Amino acid sequence: MRILLINPNTSEEFTKRVQAIADRYAFPGTTAVAMNPTAGPRSIEGIYDELLSSPGTLELAINHMNDFDAFVIACYSDHPTIYALREITEKPVLGIAEASMYVACMLGYSFSVVTTNEEWEPLLRDAVRHYGLADRCASVRSTRMPVLALEESSPAETTNLILKTARQAIDEDDAEVICLGCAGMAGMDKELQAALGVPVLDGVVCALKLLEGLIGCGVTTSKKRAYAQPGHKPIIGLPEVFGTVYR
Amino acid sequence: MRILLINPNTSEEFTKRVQAIADRYAFPGTTAVAMNPTAGPRSIEGIYDELLSSPGTLELAINHMNDFDAFVIACYSDHPTIYALREITEKPVLGIAEASMYVACMLGYSFSVVTTNEEWEPLLRDAVRHYGLADRCASVRSTRMPVLALEESSPAETTNLILKTARQAIDEDDAEVICLGCAGMAGMDKELQAALGVPVLDGVVCALKLLEGLIGCGVTTSKKRAYAQPGHKPIIGLPEVFGTVYR
Amino acid sequence: MRILLINPNTSEEFTKRVQAIADRYAFPGTTAVAMNPTAGPRSIEGIYDELLSSPGTLELAINHMNDFDAFVIACYSDHPTIYALREITEKPVLGIAEASMYVACMLGYSFSVVTTNEEWEPLLRDAVRHYGLADRCASVRSTRMPVLALEESSPAETTNLILKTARQAIDEDDAEVICLGCAGMAGMDKELQAALGVPVLDGVVCALKLLEGLIGCGVTTSKKRAYAQPGHKPIIGLPEVFGTVYR
Amino acid sequence: MRILLINPNTSEEFTKRVQAIADRYAFPGTTAVAMNPTAGPRSIEGIYDELLSSPGTLELAINHMNDFDAFVIACYSDHPTIYALREITEKPVLGIAEASMYVACMLGYSFSVVTTNEEWEPLLRDAVRHYGLADRCASVRSTRMPVLALEESSPAETTNLILKTARQAIDEDDAEVICLGCAGMAGMDKELQAALGVPVLDGVVCALKLLEGLIGCGVTTSKKRAYAQPGHKPIIGLPEVFGTVYR
Amino acid sequence: MRILLINPNTSEEFTKRVQAIADRYAFPGTTAVAMNPTAGPRSIEGIYDELLSSPGTLELAINHMNDFDAFVIACYSDHPTIYALREITEKPVLGIAEASMYVACMLGYSFSVVTTNEEWEPLLRDAVRHYGLADRCASVRSTRMPVLALEESSPAETTNLILKTARQAIDEDDAEVICLGCAGMAGMDKELQAALGVPVLDGVVCALKLLEGLIGCGVTTSKKRAYAQPGHKPIIGLPEVFGTVYR
Amino acid sequence: MRILLINPNTSEEFTKRVQAIADRYAFPGTTAVAMNPTAGPRSIEGIYDELLSSPGTLELAINHMNDFDAFVIACYSDHPTIYALREITEKPVLGIAEASMYVACMLGYSFSVVTTNEEWEPLLRDAVRHYGLADRCASVRSTRMPVLALEESSPAETTNLILKTARQAIDEDDAEVICLGCAGMAGMDKELQAALGVPVLDGVVCALKLLEGLIGCGVTTSKKRAYAQPGHKPIIGLPEVFGTVYR
Repeated sequence: MRILLINPNTSEEFTKRVQAIADRYAFPGTTAVAMNPTAGPRSIEGIYDELLSSPGTLELAINHMNDFDAFVIACYSDHPTIYALREITEKPVLGIAEASMYVACMLGYSFSVVTTNEEWEPLLRDAVRHYGLADRCASVRSTRMPVLALEESSPAETTNLILKTARQAIDEDDAEVICLGCAGMAGMDKELQAALGVPVLDGVVCALKLLEGLIGCGVTTSKKRAYAQPGHKPIIGLPEVFGTVYR
Repeated sequence: MRILLINPNTSEEFTKRVQAIADRYAFPGTTAVAMNPTAGPRSIEGIYDELLSSPGTLELAINHMNDFDAFVIACYSDHPTIYALREITEKPVLGIAEASMYVACMLGYSFSVVTTNEEWEPLLRDAVRHYGLADRCASVRSTRMPVLALEESSPAETTNLILKTARQAIDEDDAEVICLGCAGMAGMDKELQAALGVPVLDGVVCALKLLEGLIGCGVTTSKKRAYAQPGHKPIIGLPEVFGTVYR
Repeated sequence: MRILLINPNTSEEFTKRVQAIADRYAFPGTTAVAMNPTAGPRSIEGIYDELLSSPGTLELAINHMNDFDAFVIACYSDHPTIYALREITEKPVLGIAEASMYVACMLGYSFSVVTTNEEWEPLLRDAVRHYGLADRCASVRSTRMPVLALEESSPAETTNLILKTARQAIDEDDAEVICLGCAGMAGMDKELQAALGVPVLDGVVCALKLLEGLIGCGVTTSKKRAYAQPGHKPIIGLPEVFGTVYR
Repeated sequence: MRILLINPNTSEEFTKRVQAIADRYAFPGTTAVAMNPTAGPRSIEGIYDELLSSPGTLELAINHMNDFDAFVIACYSDHPTIYALREITEKPVLGIAEASMYVACMLGYSFSVVTTNEEWEPLLRDAVRHYGLADRCASVRSTRMPVLALEESSPAETTNLILKTARQAIDEDDAEVICLGCAGMAGMDKELQAALGVPVLDGVVCALKLLEGLIGCGVTTSKKRAYAQPGHKPIIGLPEVFGTVYR
Repeated sequence: MRILLINPNTSEEFTKRVQAIADRYAFPGTTAVAMNPTAGPRSIEGIYDELLSSPGTLELAINHMNDFDAFVIACYSDHPTIYALREITEKPVLGIAEASMYVACMLGYSFSVVTTNEEWEPLLRDAVRHYGLADRCASVRSTRMPVLALEESSPAETTNLILKTARQAIDEDDAEVICLGCAGMAGMDKELQAALGVPVLDGVVCALKLLEGLIGCGVTTSKKRAYAQPGHKPIIGLPEVFGTVYR
Repeated sequence: MRILLINPNTSEEFTKRVQAIADRYAFPGTTAVAMNPTAGPRSIEGIYDELLSSPGTLELAINHMNDFDAFVIACYSDHPTIYALREITEKPVLGIAEASMYVACMLGYSFSVVTTNEEWEPLLRDAVRHYGLADRCASVRSTRMPVLALEESSPAETTNLILKTARQAIDEDDAEVICLGCAGMAGMDKELQAALGVPVLDGVVCALKLLEGLIGCGVTTSKKRAYAQPGHKPIIGLPEVFGTVYR
């Protein structure tokens, strides 16, 4: 099976990390490829950035729609392209935030998300509520480190900041599982897990493995109602490719 | 005061209707202008369409940011540009769905939304939950008429279809207030209200009047946390104007 | 248009403040009049006081029902006369607590209420849940100052106490908007807003401006079900005026 | 022990029925007395009526406060005097709606309320949510019979209407327990239970028996926070007795 | 009336305490008997222990089904035998956790549970949600003392630990009522109540008194749907008594 | 990797079906083995049956704990042994109901469960709420066919009954995904999916594939708090093996 992991920002450094994770965790029969769009912001720190990243992300997905069996949106958010892709393909699509939160609920009674800058806190609390998991979420805490600092800062410093924040979640908020709340933290899970003594989830890994499972189940996105293929309508001022997916 | 009503699709027919409503309902001191982007889909029937409409909508808003005191997103949905605009300006921003639902809660115990095509039902139920108003929403029902049929079909036929659906909401679901669930229904509220005997809300009217009120209150969007101005980051492959709003 | 703002307690000092606010914020075409009943407690600090204030409040409203287009109950609570008035008139009615909370949701992701004595905390948490806004409410905090202290204490002292409590809400509870949780705080919003750097909402202002908007929308309270005009029944031992509003 | 059951309306017919029930169900050591205020509406069909019934109800309770160990508000609603009494006495207080709903949750997974006129439906749905029992409430259905018809109509006719409505709740809404949603239905429970084959709860009976239990437990209303004794304040234009309960 | 209080663990010390409480609080006409199964764990500290205690508990209940009018499961948890017993008898059944939480809601706006070891915190939070009372529960706090320490430790030490934890719940979490979260704390309520100044609930007392009330109401468990008598099916490898209760 | 699928009832017919499914869907590197306990009821139709099936299920799991990497409880319910096993091992454990519901949320906005006898409806609604997925669950519907009829009835008859019930869920309740609500329906999913045109989920398949994914992620059950290894305590009257897993 073939899985496309789309990093929706334009940081090639992040894309490389996602590819490295995919290479390490894919089952033998899985080809997992990480890509990023050629247009959009270098990092995503809110809904404005999400929307700027969306056309490039959708274009990338449409151009590769026939080459893959499933799609990951590798941004730790309730990124709207997850739902847009479900509308235009019946192949399974997963975001890394929802993937890690569902896995967290299978491993403990309550989980916390440790994210980057403060603005992500309300956005991720909102995502938790959207997934219906508010009762299971102990807290969303931020390291208050900007996303792109993950490209640059020394691993030790970053690791320490995440460890400190995760320990507060475990000790003060009663978290039993930690979700790493940024794609830029990909690959740090096992070291943190060893230090913290509770499961630490990398959303990229979770989404990849859940999608392998969904494909193995032989299931697809429902095209009834919410994710029905959208009907044809005229589009102006945008690349023609966007009109090719209408029903 | 000056209010910009953005119809995020590219149907000039819809924009004209929004302008007509704005002209009829604005207070004497209000200048209300309806516009639509020059790029994007002619109608919005799901999240894919919302995302295609977003860059044009944001560009339009940025280009007119200094000319207006408040902004309406005139699409009956939880359109993500509502939140993106709140991030990039402190001037008040309202969507027409949230505006009509808040007003409905001030007028009755329970409201129903009557929308167009069936796919909007789960999307609007999700919006209702997002606004925290699930206990107050009696139902979301669709006429199963595609959005663009509102551009074309004879008024009487459309009115009858909406009346029939609204009566089901009132009689079977216990709705006490009806929200018209499509910007394309703008201007039909008073005739329907007379026929149904319960308040019928036009979201464009509601958003316009609420924003006049918010400006009158002397309040602005909070720039603390959720809607903080996003930090600077490199953008590639997109018009430069998008980078001008970063902090 | 004419709006009656009823201060349901018998503190004329509070009524004067409400009138001052109304004068400052009403649109040119609006006549806004503040009144209080001639019977009842001087302040309202719980449900017992609410009930003692209700007959006088209702009698005042009934006596002026034909002179006004909308009614504000200017007590920061889920005061039951809000609902009673909606039953006996179709003219719009708003409480100042619900008004400020709806406005808060249009300006930020989460709000806190800063109220007076400790007993209001559970009552206002209950009101928040009643309006369906629990997910958006960061906290309800009290200054632990009795309501009537607002009549007497020096402004600077009161302001400092509110500032301190609001800062805790912003820093510890992640509030993005502050609602002033007592009618006696009317007029303090802009000074606090300047000091805190987030929107601070005066419920009297919010209710007045929302009602101007609702009247401008041409909408009325639904008389279907919840707020249907109550049917005739014999009343004994109460002023006859109370029986005049039955269907 | 001595328990006062206050019928808050002024229908002596209803008070007699409550007294008859109390006589039949009280434990040997219990003296249960039913009374009604001398001022207020003959029936209660909404919040306006609740408020008109409140001063008389409170005055009655205050005048007999030392003579009884616990108080029932015998109106099937979330009557605000329940909470007002909890503020002014530490003796246990129960409403008949909450009493029957708690008992229902001990006997089945889901219950329905069968009430009188249609306007009670949204009010009782709201009460259910207030008690946190929305997940357990299958439905609130009305016979569409006005409250005072219970004083007059022939028992057989009334019984048949309630039976029909209860059967719809059981068959269509999956109710497992039926709560009789009006004090005027007091005494009809056992006949209906025999006909329906599921438990049928009379709120007057439930409240009486729960209060005997609470008194037997040796517990009282908490005077910490929500139900703290209200502080002294001037009252004007009302009987002096209302000022005697302040702290 | 005759009530069987089953301590589902095999600590005879706990059973004696439950019997002592029952003797002290039962109405004159009530025979209340405490028993424990002859097989199972000496204490219950999680779901594994609950399941080990279940066969013995069910066997005990079945063997005494005809001798009693109602059953208490005297373990402070959402013990699954509560529901199993409701399936196999129509006589009322109550757990001590649900009993104390319902009583708490009749006495204050918010309650906290003070339990023993830390693992009970998530389990009891889950129980609170299951009963629909999450909005009313201020907190679940543990003394971090293992259950069996209650058999051994000196009363003063235990009392102090509970007092300290309860005071945190009152002062930091706004609890207005305290529920003692372990059957092993039976009999400590009145001393703690005197020290804390808020109601302190012993679940054994609450369950006993509620059941006396339910029997007095003349009601039984609904046998419609959730608690329908289970249908006959072959059982292998278990005592034959278990097959005798099938329909 | 090695996965043990425990059918907790004693129907060898059901176990064979689970084994057949496991054989068909396991990845090449997975050894999946289905077993059932040697003591307990032949089918599980409520909580009483769940508890009778628990000792045998736990004993089977403990005896094979070192031979497998993960465990499935193959009963479509919130079977308490799921949680008990999580307490006594850190190897991942999944129930087939939760597995299929999480997968459903990845494939559509709303799902329905089609189960067997009517008593499962409230039990599975309760499970849905327990998992936090109430907003996503369109309905739980039963075919009203007893569980063991699945052992006997002709496939065509069973299929038709499920099809009819699933179509009601899709047409009347707006379900977009169907979950087969009984382990005895294992293997019927693909035929039903072809007939219904929406995804149909077999919980056994979902649990197996999710567990392969979890093992692939390198994660285990959190042993912090909820699922901490239970502490040692004396057990009497039960096989000694039950005492071997205490901490």
